[in-house]
Formats: sequence, C-alpha cells, structure tokens
Amino acid sequence: MKIIEVELIRFQYRSKMVRDAEGHSHPGPEHDATATITRIATDEGVEGYAMGGSPAMLDTVRQVLIGEDPLYRERIWQRLRQFQRMLGPSLDDRHLSAIDLALWDLAGKVAGLPVFKLLGGYRDKVPAYASTMCGDDIPGGLDSPESYADFAQACVEQGYKAFKLHTWMAPLGPDPKRDVAACAAVRERVGPEIDLMLDCHHDYSRTEALYIGRALEELGYHWFEEPMNESSMSSYIWLSEQLDIPVVGPETARGLFYTRAEWIVNKASDISRYDVALGGLTPLMKCIHLAEAHGVALEVHGGGHGNLHALGAMGIPGEYYERGLLHPLYDFEAAQPWLASRVDDIDEDGNVTIPQAPGLSWDFDWEFIDRNRI
Amino acid sequence: MKIIEVELIRFQYRSKMVRDAEGHSHPGPEHDATATITRIATDEGVEGYAMGGSPAMLDTVRQVLIGEDPLYRERIWQRLRQFQRMLGPSLDDRHLSAIDLALWDLAGKVAGLPVFKLLGGYRDKVPAYASTMCGDDIPGGLDSPESYADFAQACVEQGYKAFKLHTWMAPLGPDPKRDVAACAAVRERVGPEIDLMLDCHHDYSRTEALYIGRALEELGYHWFEEPMNESSMSSYIWLSEQLDIPVVGPETARGLFYTRAEWIVNKASDISRYDVALGGLTPLMKCIHLAEAHGVALEVHGGGHGNLHALGAMGIPGEYYERGLLHPLYDFEAAQPWLASRVDDIDEDGNVTIPQAPGLSWDFDWEFIDRNRI
Repeated sequence: MKIIEVELIRFQYRSKMVRDAEGHSHPGPEHDATATITRIATDEGVEGYAMGGSPAMLDTVRQVLIGEDPLYRERIWQRLRQFQRMLGPSLDDRHLSAIDLALWDLAGKVAGLPVFKLLGGYRDKVPAYASTMCGDDIPGGLDSPESYADFAQACVEQGYKAFKLHTWMAPLGPDPKRDVAACAAVRERVGPEIDLMLDCHHDYSRTEALYIGRALEELGYHWFEEPMNESSMSSYIWLSEQLDIPVVGPETARGLFYTRAEWIVNKASDISRYDVALGGLTPLMKCIHLAEAHGVALEVHGGGHGNLHALGAMGIPGEYYERGLLHPLYDFEAAQPWLASRVDDIDEDGNVTIPQAPGLSWDFDWEFIDRNRI
Repeated sequence: MKIIEVELIRFQYRSKMVRDAEGHSHPGPEHDATATITRIATDEGVEGYAMGGSPAMLDTVRQVLIGEDPLYRERIWQRLRQFQRMLGPSLDDRHLSAIDLALWDLAGKVAGLPVFKLLGGYRDKVPAYASTMCGDDIPGGLDSPESYADFAQACVEQGYKAFKLHTWMAPLGPDPKRDVAACAAVRERVGPEIDLMLDCHHDYSRTEALYIGRALEELGYHWFEEPMNESSMSSYIWLSEQLDIPVVGPETARGLFYTRAEWIVNKASDISRYDVALGGLTPLMKCIHLAEAHGVALEVHGGGHGNLHALGAMGIPGEYYERGLLHPLYDFEAAQPWLASRVDDIDEDGNVTIPQAPGLSWDFDWEFIDRNRI
C-alpha cells in the first residue's frame, strides 16, 4: 500500500466562540470560521483523516509521504520530526500531529479496528472532568466566584464527577485572591466528593503560585496546573518541592516527550502531561510509557478523538478525559457542525465511552463539509 | 471477540544443544528435548501463538483471559503483572511474555498485518550480529582465543558485519586475561571495520571489569555487556563512570522496564537493554519509548519473532538484531525443527529481513508438531 495524496480540506462553519487577546476562548457573537481536515489517500482506496494541517507543511509532508507505505508510521514520524528543526512553524508539532493522527486513522481502517485496540485496549470508558473556559466579565458567564459555583453545580447535576476551573487571564486578571475565591466557592457548592482542579494564569510568580497552591491544599483540590511560565523548569522544581498538592505539567513546554523526561527526572511536576497536539498519537504513547516506567502519573491534556483512543489504551498512568472547554452560555455539544456525532458524549455517571468504530472513529458530516468547502 | 481457550501444546524434538552447570548452552550429543507453544483461541476462530508457557500459570491465566476480548492487551498485561507479585515463579516474566506475545500474534491476524506494522513500521531489515555460545573446551569449538578468531572470520565471510563473544564461564573461567586475549585475537583477525562486542562472565569484581573494559577500549570494541552482578546497580554506575566504551544493561535484572528507568536515571549503563522474554512485547515497546525519551540507546537482547518485530518498529534507539547463539560445531539454522522456516535468515550483507506475514509471522510445521506431541 502506498500513499498517493496528502490533501487539505478547508471549509467554513458558523462559530459562537471568539478568542481574546491572549488566545483564550470565550462565547461571542456568531461568525464565520474555518476548519481544516488533513486527508491522506492510498492507492488501495483507504484514507485517513485528522483535524488540522497547514498549506505551509504540504511540500515537505508530500516529499516524505507520497509513495511511502502508510503503515510505516514510526519512520514517517521520525523523518518529519527531523525536518522540524529547519522548518520551524511551517511544520509545527500541531501539523506533525495532523499527519500522525491521519496515519493512525488509516491504520485502524486497514485493520478494521478502533485505534485503541490497535494499541492494546485497557478500558471501555473513562471518567471526564468538565473543563471551563477562562474567566470573563460576561453577565451570566464566568464573571465571579459565584458564577463558577453555579456552573460547577450545573455540571455535577449533569453527571460530571470532576470539574476544572480556568480562571481570569489578562486583562481581567491575574488575581491570586480572586482565583482562590472562585476555587473556594466551587468547593463549598459541590461538596467534598467532587474532584476539583485549577488551571490559572500561566505567568504567576513563584510566591503567588505558592499562595494559590497552599489554598488549594486547604480546599482539598485534586491537582494544580501551570501557574507559572513553563520555560522555567526551575520554578516548577521549586514549587513541587513546597507543595503536597500534585503539580501537573508541562503542557505547553516545547520539546515533545523528551522534555517530559527532563521534568520527570528533575521532579518538576508530580503528574506529567501530554496530548496528541504535541506531535501526534505516536509521541503521546511514548510519553505515557515514559511516565509509567517512572511510576509517574500522566494526565492527557485536552479532548478529541486521538486523546480518547490513547485513554482507552492506558489505565496506568492516566485518570481523566478533559471535556471542554465549557461555559454556561456556550453550546459545546453543537460546536462541531462538521461531525454527524460528537465522539465524547458523557453518560449520567460522567463517563465518556471509548469509540469502537475503526480508526479514530471519525463521524464526519460530509454533506455539511462539501456544502461549505472553500 | 472473546477468548475461549488457553492451551499449551507440548512436543518433543531432537536437540544437539546441552546446558552446562550454570545454564549456558553448548553443542552436545543429540537427545530428546521438549518445547511448548502457548495457544490462545477465540470464539471467532482466530488464534494466537507464542513459544513458551507453563502448566503452573494456566489457572491464573485462564481466570484472566477466558471471556476477555483478546485485543485488550494492555488490560490483560496489567492484570497479569499484578498477579505476579503473589504467584512468583508460576507466573514468571517469561510466562507473561508467552501470553502477551500470543495476544500480539492474534491481533496481527485479526488486522491482517505483521505486528511491526501494527506498532508502526520503521524499517524493513535490521543488521544482525553473530552472537557466540560461551567458551568451552571442545576441540574445534570455542576453546581458545584463536578459536574465537577462526569463528569470527567464518561469520564475517558469511556476511555478518558484527560479532559478539560470550567468553568462558565457570568452571572454565572466569579469567579476565583470557577474555581479553580472545577479544584481541578476534579484533586482529577481522580488522577494524567489524563491530565487536563482549558479553563475559557476569560476576567479575569492579576491578576486573574495569581491566577488561579498558582493554576493550584499546581494541575499539563497540560495547561491553554484563561483566558484574546486575543486582548491584552501584557497581554499574561506578563502571560506567570510569569507562568510555558503552556499558550495556541491565539484561537479567528483574523489575521489567521500571528497573531500566532506574538504570537510566542513575546512569548505570550507557545503552539500555530489554527483550520480549521480560514480560512480552508490550513492556519491550514501553522500554524502547522510555529510552528514546531519555536520548539513551537500547539494544534488544536475544532473537526471535517478537524481538524482530520490535526492531522493525524502532529505528531509534536500537541498532542490532542478536542472532544466535552460534558455535562452530552447532547447526543453528536447523535447531528449530518445529518451524517450516526460520524467521531470521541473514542475507549476504548481514541483515535480517523483518517478516511481513500477519501477526508474529510464525511458520510452524504443524505436521512435525502433531507427530511429536506429548
């Protein structure tokens, strides 16, 4: 089997999500947005898909992929990774991810198996936590500690057993005391049985991060995420030494799973972190195996098809599926009109079922995509 | 798909290999020997096979496997691993390996793909090194430094580009000076272009190991393997600090890939080591990913179907396939009469081709096996 084509399918859709000056998402007025699907086609008619990809990557990607057996994922991944050094943003980790995921999707279809069973299945469902958007000043939104408490209560009533706050970023924050007030309001509202996590402003000082971490310990929080700039591993080593509450990371630090090895060896966090956006499912599984070898937990960042299949193949060292980002005024369930069905519906117990359809279990609404194709 | 049966197929064959008092193999008079195949059968008729397995494991293994979907390899592996703590030798790593490998074989057959493509292929062939039996006192065997040189020359003429000596064990050794003499004789005979490695007596003192290691550095050897008791990680940290030549290990230390993480973090060796006999292909791949994350090379120990598929799926961090154990008076090529064909024939350039048949690519001679079944 040979790859004969790598194509980007771009289409428009109507979105009600806007990004602020720092790139954080919030509900907003409906507007046109575009999305991209990477499609890899073979001479035997089997195709693989993934969301994402960029025109800037196409020349290099085609140079490596066309004529290659798509089942040589490891060879393709290593070659593209080596290309990254010179290509920079035109072959970013997210672009590499789109290629790798499309190849996993294709392999699953060749095998007639869902990807998590290709990897070796571990579980059929995974508990999800409700992961909020960042704080805002929208009435009825996430504009006060009380609003977070209201939203947490609604999520728990929907079935979630865990809830993660993203609090206020610039220019509405940062504000350590307000972050703690929001965390306290949520804990008071949902009671002691719900796992709570905080992902706050990512640029606090060590002193501010320690202040927040101590408060989270008092409130019985489950983990504490990225309160400082991850480029300073030393800051995280310092913070993890001080705190009992598990510090989670790194999430955005570059350097793929190699960097996670450094964080583990240097005890810069208590729980490691990775997701398919960092180069694909191939490096995510490597990072999971790295963490397991060191007896370190790893929480998968973000949701979606690739992460969910990884969670289906790992019991150790991962716990939760991150579902979101959610907001009281945002219809998350309807946010991907290019899919005939979401992959991550939650049941009444707050679990997401690992999909059983072949490959990454995409359920594209091709009629919608073709109608809106650019 | 459900597992409905786990069976051991035992059969007799004629062997010309005998084991000495320490368990090391040598050529010897032809005699009856027995071998075991673990067979896992499903309700859909697909079956998986692996060499090995033991009657003592069957109750536990059946308890975990019967009724389970065979594609949930990770779940099965983790459950059996947890059972190991209480079961001890009746569910040794080698028994766990037989189960795990049979499940990988089965998955490949379900997918219609060779296992290395399930994993994500990297390469189609891998260079092999000729790996000798241990030293002996057999005329025409490996009874002198000169005999090793003769045999190395024969291997190089056969196509091998690399050669590893196993030197004299008790009661013929240990003898550091004689080990070095054999290494020197081989280097002198094959010239500077052939990669040479030494795997010597595994119970030398630190001082003896350092003496041998320095000599290997002088002789331009490629790596130095297990010269001391691996239960003393401190000895290996000490030795690796002293030597420039890469120290390889651990090979026999217990504790699966968790132990390899400790050796990597503690710089106890320069090249990590694992093989499918240590719990299966599932933990071998985890160890490969662990090593890659740390920028550490890993050489797969031993040969056979499972190791070969792993080598096909890894380019980084592994280099060689270990072919053997070989001896001037032993017909290695004919040593597995239960196979219609060996999996690891070498070509004239000293490479072994990664097999393309589905699963682990077994080519059993069922007529032979049935005729000799116990």
